[in-house]
Amino acid sequence: MVGMRATVMYRAGDVRVETVPDAGLVEPTDALVRVTRAAICGSDLWPYRSMEPSESGRRMGHEFIGLVEGTGADVRTVRTGDVVVAPFVWSDGTCVLCRAGVHTSCLHGGRYGSDGVDGGQGEAVRVPQADGTLVPVPVGRDDELMASLLTLSDVMATGHHAARHANVGPGKSVAVVGDGAVGLCGVIAARRLGAEQVIILGRHPARIALAREFGATDVVVERGDEAVERVLELTDGVGVHSALECVGHGESTITALSIVRPGGAVGRVGLPQEESIPQGVTTFFDNVTISGGPAPARAYIEELLPDVLEGRIEPGRVFDRSIGLDEVPDGYRAMNDRESIKVMVELP
Amino acid sequence: MVGMRATVMYRAGDVRVETVPDAGLVEPTDALVRVTRAAICGSDLWPYRSMEPSESGRRMGHEFIGLVEGTGADVRTVRTGDVVVAPFVWSDGTCVLCRAGVHTSCLHGGRYGSDGVDGGQGEAVRVPQADGTLVPVPVGRDDELMASLLTLSDVMATGHHAARHANVGPGKSVAVVGDGAVGLCGVIAARRLGAEQVIILGRHPARIALAREFGATDVVVERGDEAVERVLELTDGVGVHSALECVGHGESTITALSIVRPGGAVGRVGLPQEESIPQGVTTFFDNVTISGGPAPARAYIEELLPDVLEGRIEPGRVFDRSIGLDEVPDGYRAMNDRESIKVMVELP
Repeated sequence: MVGMRATVMYRAGDVRVETVPDAGLVEPTDALVRVTRAAICGSDLWPYRSMEPSESGRRMGHEFIGLVEGTGADVRTVRTGDVVVAPFVWSDGTCVLCRAGVHTSCLHGGRYGSDGVDGGQGEAVRVPQADGTLVPVPVGRDDELMASLLTLSDVMATGHHAARHANVGPGKSVAVVGDGAVGLCGVIAARRLGAEQVIILGRHPARIALAREFGATDVVVERGDEAVERVLELTDGVGVHSALECVGHGESTITALSIVRPGGAVGRVGLPQEESIPQGVTTFFDNVTISGGPAPARAYIEELLPDVLEGRIEPGRVFDRSIGLDEVPDGYRAMNDRESIKVMVELP
Repeated sequence: MVGMRATVMYRAGDVRVETVPDAGLVEPTDALVRVTRAAICGSDLWPYRSMEPSESGRRMGHEFIGLVEGTGADVRTVRTGDVVVAPFVWSDGTCVLCRAGVHTSCLHGGRYGSDGVDGGQGEAVRVPQADGTLVPVPVGRDDELMASLLTLSDVMATGHHAARHANVGPGKSVAVVGDGAVGLCGVIAARRLGAEQVIILGRHPARIALAREFGATDVVVERGDEAVERVLELTDGVGVHSALECVGHGESTITALSIVRPGGAVGRVGLPQEESIPQGVTTFFDNVTISGGPAPARAYIEELLPDVLEGRIEPGRVFDRSIGLDEVPDGYRAMNDRESIKVMVELP
């Protein structure tokens, strides 16, 4: 066994690319995927900032696209040679929760980088439950759409999930809290679902410029109470129909709950950093719905794929840096320093 | 001015029926309604338990049916002599929030018993925004359906609201947390919307018996963690699709959040007694939706009315005691002591 190269995190700030055992088929439902594109996720930055030291380290990465190199005896829907998108969790596709579209809670699913399953920021991944997980795409491995296709594994699906759970629809007013890659995809999703007004809350010039290109109609650079006031001004004093919470902090959650109109909804996709959701902001009396969670990307890929393939949406533009596998540690640093919106890793 | 009799609360435990100024038309959009039936609400028990002393007192009651005795010059949709159901808040029916079905947040609406508007537990009420508020019903003032019609002003609409916001639908499994009048109406609403399994969480024998007659399929008498365990046993280990939170305590809210399956929804209608909603129970990671609030009864009356008129639902059975206006103080006591599920007040 020669071994392969993959990303391992040992503690906050300590990410390395090193040689690990080769990925290989174990279960008859597995596929072996040679990774061609991977991404660094905003959620990878939480351990990058706070992980306790670990001797064995933690395999990283959960957004990737690759070529199927082999499949177990029971795999039916993907074949060697297929280019496949891997949603950021694996799932059987057949349990009662997958059938309800909540693949992130699959009764027989799991996460990359744990329990003997490889991480996505490496040369290859053993993907369990391949039939329920992987989605073949009808393009070559270096197609120019590859960046946008890669977003279907997580970030575009997550923006879409926020919009769906915030009940975005034709003619509605929407606020997107956060100008990171998820927020930017939330803008795409809101416009795609017919929103008339899309207000982005953020202040980073390059990100705001991209949000405008994606269809944001208004920009609110203020924060806290001032941001709430500005959004109310922009919505005849009543607030937006839908707020997409794309950060996860207590303050951004309060902002999202405060700018939504009575009867409206907050779609939360930012990993929550607080133990509870405040309702002092009249969430109950205003009949505000709080929804969302980790996006079941697998449930959305078929819906979003045609729009990517036909160029109607270009979520791949959130990647503003492309690097090789050995540069992954610097990629983490660049995202953590907000030097880069989102980093794509290209493998040969 | 002779004055009329009405219910006034002066402090916790001190409810009186006394003579107050006669109700009368003030605005051209008002209707004057002679009350024929009123109810005591579970929410009236909160001030009954905790109200600070007040010299002027607080006019009580927000669920009533009556006869229109007069209308202002601008009123178009109700006429003198109509028997009308009054939803528990008044609303203009035309603002952007009423048009969205959130009449409880009407931009020009308000609550009975404050700002110069009478309470419902009295002989007559000036109802503002009569066109947007009152719903005429095609029955005589002493029709045998009167108890069920009265529930449309609040408690049946509230059970329905919980069910709608918990996404109850055909074939789904539903848990109703709380066996009070709202919970019992939640059972009716869940069955009416096609739920297959309806689990009631409660332990009061008479209420549970009524819940079974309304269509509850399972009863969980346990509380806290044991209740959660029982509901999981009854749902193949995954929890219910929909939980109706009909109490409002921190513990009942945690129970509701803990028994709903990933991707499911909690419809909250119990007046929340806590400042925040806990999410330690994996609300976010399970993609659980938290929705609900005060029910916009006005939005639901047209939908529910035919089922009441044609006898398909009998929510009036939640009234297990009928009293005269002078007995209202004892009615509060009886509900507070859980001697009565819900009290109806009959006026001559």
